[in-house]
Amino acid sequence: MRLEDARVSIVGLGLIGGSLALGLRERCSRLVGIDSSRAARLWAAERAGLDEVTADLADGLSGCDLALLAVPVNSILKILERLGHDLPSPRFVLDVGSTKRRIVESMNRLPQGIHAVAGHPLGGKETSGPSGAEAALFRGRLFALVPTERTSPEAMDLSQQVVAALGAESWITDAVDHDRRVACTGQLPFVLAVSLMAVGARRAGTDNGLWDAAASGFLGTSRLAASGVPMMRDILLTNREQVLEAVRDAKDWLGDFADRLANQDVVWIETQLSEQRNLRRSLVAPPATIERAHENHDLWPGA
Amino acid sequence: MRLEDARVSIVGLGLIGGSLALGLRERCSRLVGIDSSRAARLWAAERAGLDEVTADLADGLSGCDLALLAVPVNSILKILERLGHDLPSPRFVLDVGSTKRRIVESMNRLPQGIHAVAGHPLGGKETSGPSGAEAALFRGRLFALVPTERTSPEAMDLSQQVVAALGAESWITDAVDHDRRVACTGQLPFVLAVSLMAVGARRAGTDNGLWDAAASGFLGTSRLAASGVPMMRDILLTNREQVLEAVRDAKDWLGDFADRLANQDVVWIETQLSEQRNLRRSLVAPPATIERAHENHDLWPGA
Repeated sequence: MRLEDARVSIVGLGLIGGSLALGLRERCSRLVGIDSSRAARLWAAERAGLDEVTADLADGLSGCDLALLAVPVNSILKILERLGHDLPSPRFVLDVGSTKRRIVESMNRLPQGIHAVAGHPLGGKETSGPSGAEAALFRGRLFALVPTERTSPEAMDLSQQVVAALGAESWITDAVDHDRRVACTGQLPFVLAVSLMAVGARRAGTDNGLWDAAASGFLGTSRLAASGVPMMRDILLTNREQVLEAVRDAKDWLGDFADRLANQDVVWIETQLSEQRNLRRSLVAPPATIERAHENHDLWPGA
Repeated sequence: MRLEDARVSIVGLGLIGGSLALGLRERCSRLVGIDSSRAARLWAAERAGLDEVTADLADGLSGCDLALLAVPVNSILKILERLGHDLPSPRFVLDVGSTKRRIVESMNRLPQGIHAVAGHPLGGKETSGPSGAEAALFRGRLFALVPTERTSPEAMDLSQQVVAALGAESWITDAVDHDRRVACTGQLPFVLAVSLMAVGARRAGTDNGLWDAAASGFLGTSRLAASGVPMMRDILLTNREQVLEAVRDAKDWLGDFADRLANQDVVWIETQLSEQRNLRRSLVAPPATIERAHENHDLWPGA
C-alpha cells in the first residue's frame, strides 16, 4: 500500500505524535488525530491541519488503514491489547515507543490480520506536549523498525514509507539489541541528568544562590531532566534490566573516579579525561587544526 | 585607575584568554597577548588585533598595569609564585581560574605592592583553544571576584571595570563558597558527562553500531566531556574535596535510583522525576500553558 493512499490515525498528540502529524500532513489520503487532552486537540485543530480530531479512540481508529501509536509505552501496551477486541482492527499498526521488547511481545499476540511493526524514532526534545512539535523533528535521524510475528512485507514497506516521509533513516533491528543500545544512549543520559538536578536540589536547600552559578554547562548536562514524566517512567520500567545495567556501570565508574581523585592519581584521571574527550569530539565534526595544535598547550614552559 | 588608561597583558590565549582579548580590545590603552603556543599566537596576531603578541612571559608582562592570568589553575599558581621575583611586578593582577581556594592562598603570599583579585567568569564552552573564542563569551554571565589579602579597593574597582567591559555581572564572594558551589554546578556536570562517555566506550567495544544511536539527548548530556584536559584536570585536583563530595552524592543517588528501579518502586521514581523536572524547567523560561496542560495527559482513559 502506498502511504499517499493510506488513511492514517495518530493516537496521542504530544511532542512526538504532534510532530508526526506535522510531518505526515499531505503525505497520506486522510489524517486523523486522537487525544484525550483538550489542549492537545485544540492545538491539533488549530495548528496541525488534520482532517479530523477526536477524543474517542474507537471513532478515531475506525476506517483507518494505519494506526500510529504515539502515547507512553504502557499506554501503547494497553491499546495493543484492545485492538480487534473492543477497538477496531486497523490493517497496519506502527508504534513509536522508546523501548521495544514488551511492545514486540504484545504485537506478537495481535489478532491475525493486523500487520504490526514496532518502531522508535531516535532523538526527541526535552519538552513535552504538542507546542514543541516540529515537522522536521525526525529529519536525518535513525528510526528503528523492529519486525514482529505480525510483520508482513507490506507492513514493513509501509512503515519504511512513513520513515522516508519524515526524512528519517530506517534502522531495522531486533528488540534486544535496540533496548540494550538505547539504555546507554537514551535512558542513561536522562538518569544522569536527573541525578545532577537531585544533587543540586539538596544543596540548594542550604545554599540560596546555588542556581545563580548554574551556567551553560550545568544547563546542557541537566537538560533531559525536563523530559515528560509519564513517557520517561514507562520507558525506564519497561527496559528495567538494561537501564539498571547502564546505571550501575555509571555508578561504578563514578566510584572509581572518586577513589582515583581521592588518591590524586593524576595519570589515571588524565588518561580518562583524554580518552573520553577524544571520543566525544569524534562524535561530531572534527575541530579545526588550531584547536588540535592548542591541545597540547599545557603548563607554561618554565612556569 | 581607569581601565581605558590601563596597559593590560593577557597570559594564555586559549578559549578564555582569547575571549578576554576580543572582549577588551579598544577598552584599554594597550593590550598584549602572551602564549607559548605558536598556533595561539598566530591566531592572536591575525584575529584579535592585539598591540603585541609574544611567547616570552617576562617581556609580555613588563610595563603592564594589569596582568590577566588565563592559563590552567596549576599554571596560574606557578606564575603567581614568580611575580615580583624572576617575573615583573604588575601593579594589578586578576586571574580567571575556575577554582579559587588555592589561588587566593597563593595571592596572599604575593609581594606587597602587587594588588591581586581572584576571579572566575562562570560558564564557557566545551571547546579548547582560541578558535572558539568570542568577544561575547562572558556577556550576561556572573563573574566571581574573590578578595584576597592583596586586594586593595583600587584593585577591586579595576577588576569590576573589566567585568563590566565584558558585559558580565560581578559576584563578590569568598573562595570556600565559590568552590563549593562550582563543584556542584561546574565540575559535577563535567564528571557526569565523562562517566557517560566511559560507559558508552566500554559498550561500543562489543557493539559497533552503538554511536549510531547517540542522538541529541546523548550528545547534549555528554557535551562537556569534550572540554580541554589540562584545564579540567587542574580544576578537579585543586578542588578535590568539594568535587569528591559532589561526585559521591551523585553516586549515592544513582545507587538509590537503581535499588528503587530494581524493586519497581513506581511512586519513588515518579516523585523524583516530577520534582527534578519541575526544578529543571524552573531554571529556564516557563513553558507555555499548553505544555503544562498536557503534562497530566498520562494513561489513555480506559485504555
